[in-house]
Amino acid sequence: MDHIAEPVARLIDELNKLPGIGPKSAQRLAFYLLRTPREQAQALAEAIVEVKERIRLCSTCFHLTERDPCAICANPQRDRSLLCVVEEPLDVLAIERTREYRGLYHVLHGALSPIEGIGPEQLRLRELLARLRDGQVAEVILATNANLEGEATATYVARLLRPLGVRVTRLARGLPVGGDLEYADDLTLSRALEGRREF
Amino acid sequence: MDHIAEPVARLIDELNKLPGIGPKSAQRLAFYLLRTPREQAQALAEAIVEVKERIRLCSTCFHLTERDPCAICANPQRDRSLLCVVEEPLDVLAIERTREYRGLYHVLHGALSPIEGIGPEQLRLRELLARLRDGQVAEVILATNANLEGEATATYVARLLRPLGVRVTRLARGLPVGGDLEYADDLTLSRALEGRREF
Repeated sequence: MDHIAEPVARLIDELNKLPGIGPKSAQRLAFYLLRTPREQAQALAEAIVEVKERIRLCSTCFHLTERDPCAICANPQRDRSLLCVVEEPLDVLAIERTREYRGLYHVLHGALSPIEGIGPEQLRLRELLARLRDGQVAEVILATNANLEGEATATYVARLLRPLGVRVTRLARGLPVGGDLEYADDLTLSRALEGRREF
Repeated sequence: MDHIAEPVARLIDELNKLPGIGPKSAQRLAFYLLRTPREQAQALAEAIVEVKERIRLCSTCFHLTERDPCAICANPQRDRSLLCVVEEPLDVLAIERTREYRGLYHVLHGALSPIEGIGPEQLRLRELLARLRDGQVAEVILATNANLEGEATATYVARLLRPLGVRVTRLARGLPVGGDLEYADDLTLSRALEGRREF
């Protein structure tokens, strides 16, 4: 970074810290921001600041929100007997996009991962148990990721909830829609076989 | 974007405007910024604002700079008889990284592109001609891109400079270092043949 003005170098440096943004992309983005109208760059800077100032976690479900409780928890039309447990706020959006689910959520903010030092106490598990205490929830859907950490977390949560007598389900594993059997990995295929249903 | 707090949606929207950042990456980046310590998000926002406030174009070479003239133009050790013409500020950085070039630069801020409506008057060509007037520059190196627009621009600039009697050169085209002859495209290979040199 010779002969590059210090503010530009600093912007490249900050952009480079973002996930998935390497040094080359950071450079490209910085020069784009330099060329872009001042209002657009300003809008981005303000959006970043504002999000940090105005967004907090819903004290019920721990989804990101401006108002506590969040829009989902506050919505009287949501089915309060269904609770979907997810790892991250992005997972809430993914499930909302299906327009199939009308229950509530609980965001764990992570998954068990001994390698990264994430144990049960780092997740919002105590709060999950507290929510189930009043018996309103009839079914807990474990919608953690279908990877190692997600499976471990689902197993752990399922065991934790067993004494409560609540119904615990897990998202189906199988071939992705549009997926080619030929290219499916062995594990996905065995899960698809295991989970086969009447036609 | 149902059930997503408005400031988060706006941040995703602003990030999505950046080149190479699609809706999915914008979401991922927004949630990363939400999780990240406030100081880091703040640092990024400030770097964006600062770059727009403090960076301007060098009035001589039109490279990005904090001080006018820029560090390269102001450096008495640079060879003032050599002028390298590039399309964008990023190209200056690329050439500086080689540590082979000790002359000055002239940034055109674009390349001729009839499709995008970029004609000669949109480039810093008048300023280039003005710089050559005092006869200090002995050689102009055309370092525009090796694509259609870059070639057209180089041809145009070369024609423009012909009456001035200054030496005009173009970066060599040929096989990239480490490149496999087998995989080289036809044009690159013909340029490599054309430009062959005594061994």
